[in-house]
Amino acid sequence: MTDVHKKFEEKTIRTEPIFTGKIISLQVDHVELPNGEVATREIVKHPGAVAVLALLDDKMIVVEQYRKPLEKSQVEIPAGKLDAGEDPLHAALRELEEETGYKSDQIRHISSFYTSPGFADELLHLYVVENLVKGEARPDEDEFLECEAITLEEAQQYIREQRISDAKTIMAVYAWQLYKLTGSI
Amino acid sequence: MTDVHKKFEEKTIRTEPIFTGKIISLQVDHVELPNGEVATREIVKHPGAVAVLALLDDKMIVVEQYRKPLEKSQVEIPAGKLDAGEDPLHAALRELEEETGYKSDQIRHISSFYTSPGFADELLHLYVVENLVKGEARPDEDEFLECEAITLEEAQQYIREQRISDAKTIMAVYAWQLYKLTGSI
Repeated sequence: MTDVHKKFEEKTIRTEPIFTGKIISLQVDHVELPNGEVATREIVKHPGAVAVLALLDDKMIVVEQYRKPLEKSQVEIPAGKLDAGEDPLHAALRELEEETGYKSDQIRHISSFYTSPGFADELLHLYVVENLVKGEARPDEDEFLECEAITLEEAQQYIREQRISDAKTIMAVYAWQLYKLTGSI
Repeated sequence: MTDVHKKFEEKTIRTEPIFTGKIISLQVDHVELPNGEVATREIVKHPGAVAVLALLDDKMIVVEQYRKPLEKSQVEIPAGKLDAGEDPLHAALRELEEETGYKSDQIRHISSFYTSPGFADELLHLYVVENLVKGEARPDEDEFLECEAITLEEAQQYIREQRISDAKTIMAVYAWQLYKLTGSI
């Protein structure tokens, strides 16, 4: 029986480790294609991440921070990478509290998605959190950010202005709009 | 006057080139944080990409291919990376035709988003294409894929089954659902 998840499998001939960093690592895999030819695949390994659509009355919580790869600051939903062995749901509540000070016990999974499956294995788990209770933010020592609550219309305006321009936040805004229209998420 | 896009800027002290590949390159930037401390940022450079929500009557066109970073095959909307200096709209129509054989002259921009702004500069341009005309597929020589047309309900089922699990395709399914509900995209 053919495993449907292995269709067109590219078998690894050899893995060439290139770099191991604090957050990502990089390797080049030499693979055998379905036609027997050989090719290389450049692969970034990432520990996985979480992000939170945090709803406070009729607003969502966003944070503004500098994104070095883009050389600009961006408005995004609270997010962060998984610690080793950490449960994604726990990580989502942890990142929300660290970045914004908000806590909650009402959290639901929206979806989990690979951010860039062509070259990276990063899997991002997106949650919606309601019934927020305000506490105190405790960002990481190398993390500088500003927290804000915005309406759906403001979020859509930020997308047009490209102050919001990352996949997870645009995805969260779509999910929120669908939630308002259909009552489910 | 403060540039709003430079809030919490991290100034580059030194860039350490690590790797230059066929598709991505990797560097480590040593940066000065807003508090004067020094930190490192691991940054993947990517040429940018395009993806297409291609609508054929009441179905969307998807392709199944093996994603080596995930070690499994995935169902995704047609997509690919930008050639050097290529216009994204042109690239979107080129990738659609190469991967599926479909052509069109009715194309609209949905959104452009950074797939993973924490460690990569990849910007993905998402388009919707209608009025498809069938021609002949011409995938790249190291590209093996299978084309299919699925309904919105099938797409949502694929998401639940994790046969669809990448950001751009889930984003396209949300956009399609909103298009059906609101008439605009």
